[in-house]
Amino acid sequence: MFQKAESPDLAPSPTAEAFDYVELLAQRAEGMRRRPKRARTRARLVACAAREIAAKGYEGLTVDGICAAAGMARGTFYLYYPHRSAIAVAVFRMFWTLVYRRRPRLRGRSLADRIRVTNAFYLAVYSRNAPFLAGQPSLSRERTDFAEWHDRMNHRWSLVIAANMPGDIPRDEKILRARALVAMADDLLSNIFTARTPSMRQWANQPDRLAACLTHLWTRIVAEHERT
Amino acid sequence: MFQKAESPDLAPSPTAEAFDYVELLAQRAEGMRRRPKRARTRARLVACAAREIAAKGYEGLTVDGICAAAGMARGTFYLYYPHRSAIAVAVFRMFWTLVYRRRPRLRGRSLADRIRVTNAFYLAVYSRNAPFLAGQPSLSRERTDFAEWHDRMNHRWSLVIAANMPGDIPRDEKILRARALVAMADDLLSNIFTARTPSMRQWANQPDRLAACLTHLWTRIVAEHERT
Repeated sequence: MFQKAESPDLAPSPTAEAFDYVELLAQRAEGMRRRPKRARTRARLVACAAREIAAKGYEGLTVDGICAAAGMARGTFYLYYPHRSAIAVAVFRMFWTLVYRRRPRLRGRSLADRIRVTNAFYLAVYSRNAPFLAGQPSLSRERTDFAEWHDRMNHRWSLVIAANMPGDIPRDEKILRARALVAMADDLLSNIFTARTPSMRQWANQPDRLAACLTHLWTRIVAEHERT
Repeated sequence: MFQKAESPDLAPSPTAEAFDYVELLAQRAEGMRRRPKRARTRARLVACAAREIAAKGYEGLTVDGICAAAGMARGTFYLYYPHRSAIAVAVFRMFWTLVYRRRPRLRGRSLADRIRVTNAFYLAVYSRNAPFLAGQPSLSRERTDFAEWHDRMNHRWSLVIAANMPGDIPRDEKILRARALVAMADDLLSNIFTARTPSMRQWANQPDRLAACLTHLWTRIVAEHERT
């Protein structure tokens, strides 16, 4: 949708694309009635696993819990996934792939606009999916292959930002600056919305000011050679 | 030392204060020969615990391991600390308190200078203490009281930065921007030196360029109303 927007008026609000993941997976599983049974079963397992992670954290995720929620026997689960961490990795990889795909693409808009819209999108993604995202750190510790996959995803995202960064500096430095911005946003948003760190959580109630602040910081670093 | 420096020539290099913590604790324990036995024993336990954490991570820290390294009986350990997490919390609290106390203080120097020197100091702290610092995430998960203490420390550090931030914006926004910078530096440095994240670890071999890049980012955000 975003790609086809030809004028600012046609572009949907960035938060429109910031899905509630648990809700979205549930709808997707519901909408699969005419698909092959195998696809439906897998979609139901994935939807239930995401809901369980959001409700109980990754620590609280069990094969029994997923099967009870999905109304399936344990044996069925093991036809699809070898253990709980396998389904959790699948669920989180789908999440970040979806975030990456649904990110606002605003070619032709000003750099300032793109930064503003992208930050609003990320903020909405974190605030809508906070309980689900709280499960990720435990999974990353247990499954270092997933942590490495997520690192590559962040790196890829940094490459996109670096490619949009004006200025005559070496490419690896643009990538490092981009990575710094990604790290900054991830850390602030997960502290505010997911961990609810005492010294920062008051910002959860002021999303517009928080978005403006993030946009300011990004603009200062990305657009230093433009008027800011 | 830094506080007394009256001219740039008198100030030691920032990295001079960036101690090797394991080494420093060992020297401290050694230098206590004339102190009361209780103080000496505690210093030796703390030094051995820090060394064990640097060698084996917090996961690999055991009361037996500490006692073997210190040449003490298990019973002695329990006269000082109730369990391994108690001594680990003490060791990490001492570390961050020391970092905070030894941070370069450069009143009278330009804002640009202070940012540059502070970033060089932090980079040196991370690179010299990477194996020790790698143990912190596990401890923070097990001891949420320590995680909260560390959050308050970061908050306090943000207040110092915010107080030095020029510009006519609300105080809470200055604190948020400062916190964003702390988060950014922590995340980059721990990814590069501690976790050695594949997409970033090449920067460990280019500390001067990395320091220059961090300084640039901080300067863009802290000193936006000054010439940068």
